Amino acid sequence: MTPTEAYDALLYHARRISALEQAAGLLAWDQETMMPPRGGAQRAEQMGALAAVLQELRTDPRQEDWLATAEGLDDPAPDVRADLREIRRDLTRAARLPAGLAEALARERSASHQIWAQARADRDFAAFAPALGRVLALRREEAQAVADPGQDLYDALLDHYEPGASVAQMEPVFARLREGLTGLLDRIRGSSVRMPKISGAFPETAQMALAHELAGHCGYDFASGRLDRAVHPFSSGSGGDVRITTRVDPANPTECLFATLHETGHALYEQGIAAELHMRPAGGHASMGVHESQSRFWENHVGRSAAFAPFLRDRMKIAFGGLGLRSADALFASVNAVAAGFIRTASDEAQYDLHILMRFDLERALLSGDLPVEDLEIAWADRFEADFGRRPPHAGLGCLQDVHWSEGLIGYFPTYTLGNLNAAALAAALRRDLPDFDEILHRGDLAEPLDWLREKVHRHGRVIPAGELMAQACGGPVDEAPLLAHLEAKFGAIYAL
Amino acid sequence: MTPTEAYDALLYHARRISALEQAAGLLAWDQETMMPPRGGAQRAEQMGALAAVLQELRTDPRQEDWLATAEGLDDPAPDVRADLREIRRDLTRAARLPAGLAEALARERSASHQIWAQARADRDFAAFAPALGRVLALRREEAQAVADPGQDLYDALLDHYEPGASVAQMEPVFARLREGLTGLLDRIRGSSVRMPKISGAFPETAQMALAHELAGHCGYDFASGRLDRAVHPFSSGSGGDVRITTRVDPANPTECLFATLHETGHALYEQGIAAELHMRPAGGHASMGVHESQSRFWENHVGRSAAFAPFLRDRMKIAFGGLGLRSADALFASVNAVAAGFIRTASDEAQYDLHILMRFDLERALLSGDLPVEDLEIAWADRFEADFGRRPPHAGLGCLQDVHWSEGLIGYFPTYTLGNLNAAALAAALRRDLPDFDEILHRGDLAEPLDWLREKVHRHGRVIPAGELMAQACGGPVDEAPLLAHLEAKFGAIYAL
Repeated sequence: MTPTEAYDALLYHARRISALEQAAGLLAWDQETMMPPRGGAQRAEQMGALAAVLQELRTDPRQEDWLATAEGLDDPAPDVRADLREIRRDLTRAARLPAGLAEALARERSASHQIWAQARADRDFAAFAPALGRVLALRREEAQAVADPGQDLYDALLDHYEPGASVAQMEPVFARLREGLTGLLDRIRGSSVRMPKISGAFPETAQMALAHELAGHCGYDFASGRLDRAVHPFSSGSGGDVRITTRVDPANPTECLFATLHETGHALYEQGIAAELHMRPAGGHASMGVHESQSRFWENHVGRSAAFAPFLRDRMKIAFGGLGLRSADALFASVNAVAAGFIRTASDEAQYDLHILMRFDLERALLSGDLPVEDLEIAWADRFEADFGRRPPHAGLGCLQDVHWSEGLIGYFPTYTLGNLNAAALAAALRRDLPDFDEILHRGDLAEPLDWLREKVHRHGRVIPAGELMAQACGGPVDEAPLLAHLEAKFGAIYAL
Repeated sequence: MTPTEAYDALLYHARRISALEQAAGLLAWDQETMMPPRGGAQRAEQMGALAAVLQELRTDPRQEDWLATAEGLDDPAPDVRADLREIRRDLTRAARLPAGLAEALARERSASHQIWAQARADRDFAAFAPALGRVLALRREEAQAVADPGQDLYDALLDHYEPGASVAQMEPVFARLREGLTGLLDRIRGSSVRMPKISGAFPETAQMALAHELAGHCGYDFASGRLDRAVHPFSSGSGGDVRITTRVDPANPTECLFATLHETGHALYEQGIAAELHMRPAGGHASMGVHESQSRFWENHVGRSAAFAPFLRDRMKIAFGGLGLRSADALFASVNAVAAGFIRTASDEAQYDLHILMRFDLERALLSGDLPVEDLEIAWADRFEADFGRRPPHAGLGCLQDVHWSEGLIGYFPTYTLGNLNAAALAAALRRDLPDFDEILHRGDLAEPLDWLREKVHRHGRVIPAGELMAQACGGPVDEAPLLAHLEAKFGAIYAL
């Protein structure tokens, strides 16, 4: 077999994996949007059967031989190099995983998830702690198995979501970000400015129609996707079929609109990956932090910006009649109001990353064992009080609020903040290339910023590693400065700081 | 391995196959209902990848060993016996299929389907004939390979859709049916009675709302299914997730309503199969002819009956305002009008089986070679003229109208007529057990007939072979008499014959 033949065999195999991953993704999408209530039990079996097939394909031993031969390719193009790099990554990880660990984790995750849901409803952390301990132990075992020699255990898990990232590199950035954010939050809490509130009637059909319109304005291609309702909004799919979902709160239309913009951002990224990379290892997203930067760009730097508010207000007035707001500035203020809540997902831009940073610190301490699981509830409350100035009244508003840890997702949280850092750095770079960005937002004609993102980020898929991709797009390594500058400007204006 | 362990291993394997078949079914459903236009290419790859996985599982050689051992079970229960019988059937068929034939067929089918679609649009049979010849040759090869010693080749294909059926057994029934139907059609054509026509405004949302209501009236369980629109209505799924689709013609609401009743009938069957049979070989449908009997029962013996017309008219008047019809009898007449068309799928109850019977005869002659492919267009027109009294003006209204042969579906058509025969025999038997069936239809309270069908047909799945199941339910082997009596009574009343 020549290196070229071996590469073709690898890609053929990867394409089949990709097709079945897409099928599994569709099953998951359907479960959240279309499936009737009694379809759940057999859906679980369908997903389990597909997962088993995928596991077999991913660990097919022929891949190692093909890869070894294909790595002898003479001066491969960047996309081919990326294919080989990604397959090597996956095979190395798979080869290091002890037999049975994946199954044990899947079992523990599923059990732990159910225990967590009940514990959260009961606000009873003690009921969840043992299950969390078991999942953590398995993830620690996984980290020990897959880590490179001398690699930090947390980094070994983080790498799955954010290839190439490390605690050593993030920690100083995150520390300065935390300092800036707690300072900003202090000043906001000291402000006497009160935010206006939207009021009116917001029928579901009008909300969904406006959501469709906004997604289209951003450049979302409905010929390659669709928009539906889901309890927890998400985007899914790739290539020619990238679907988004949103939720509707009849009392508050901004829930629906910003969830739509967020998921549209994710979907625009997937829709923008170059067609020749589709269904290839090089055609994935660069990292979760890059993916999240796209959702945050459209949600926060477009949707919640002062410059976009006049356009948004016009559309909302057409859709709903009145909003009970005197001006576009009032809309801008109302959608950026900072409230004294406890829940991450309901948090505003000023507080969101403080939520993430505490989870990042806590989950590292949990993984290393420095923080015993049973002490988590107190540690959470202490840290929350330090950063937010108040203690959660119970664990349901504290350390039981997120689903992530119940499923053993350790190393995922920081990608949210990386997303916000990247989004702010991209927005700053984009403003340098498109000095009339505010004018563009004002007109609501968003083709130019989308083209910029397509060119700088989307089309590359996973060919360029995430850190390098962001540095190229932003003109240097991403740090806390653009995000802090953005937040200082926005909240300074609103709260007259 | 004990016979019990071997049986458990077989069932575990079958369950995995069933789960992946359900997944493939969902992909197909989504393609017809939800998928965005540009999702088609990757959907084809997803379905292909799943088909390859299923093919591997279905031909897993371990099954033969398990089955041989499990067949040593001591006095197995009927459902266990049915599991073993069905697995034996599938393995025997798979073992006899020459390597590569399935792939060659899949390729030819796909190519032939596209050629057919173009030829139909062009009304050009000569353009399609060579592709049809190639598909036929492969199906003939398949029949020769899978046939039992001495078995008729057509029977070998028919058996896949209608286990246990044979030409020898159907031919005399079909011959008498044809005689009865051509006689009835002659008399209808001689009648001077003209049918009333529905008129009014039938908005899509009102049609879909009424379709939902009617499906619910029949006992369709929306907690285990859903109703959507599709270009060509179909039902799909099994167990706790059985979905139906319907179409909407803004000019004519009966299209939507009868398509809904038809698909509801299919779905009620699937929803009624005993839960303990789900995802087992014994839990399939008994045959296509039994499946079709359920759709036809609800479409024709409920939906198009004189007794149901008052209830249906009330609901339609509420949904649409007016119908432009003076009475329930006028609705009954209008939905049973016999028109001089050429298209099977648009045909009424009186002519439908004549369409099928000619296809049955023609496809047998094609398979045996008695009818050369290039003579099909003329043979079709001759036969059509003999039965319907007129010649199709072109092949698009003649032998190019159906998709079936383009995909090599030989042996499938007769199951439509078996469905009509079974439905009429079941309706007659049901009337003996529920003498007030007309009263029930009049009230639109359909729980009793559904219970009867559940008990006699649905719950058994594939445990009892189709012919035996129908004979038990109907009090004897099914022949042409109940269907002819039903049609004579209905059309006699409408056309004053």
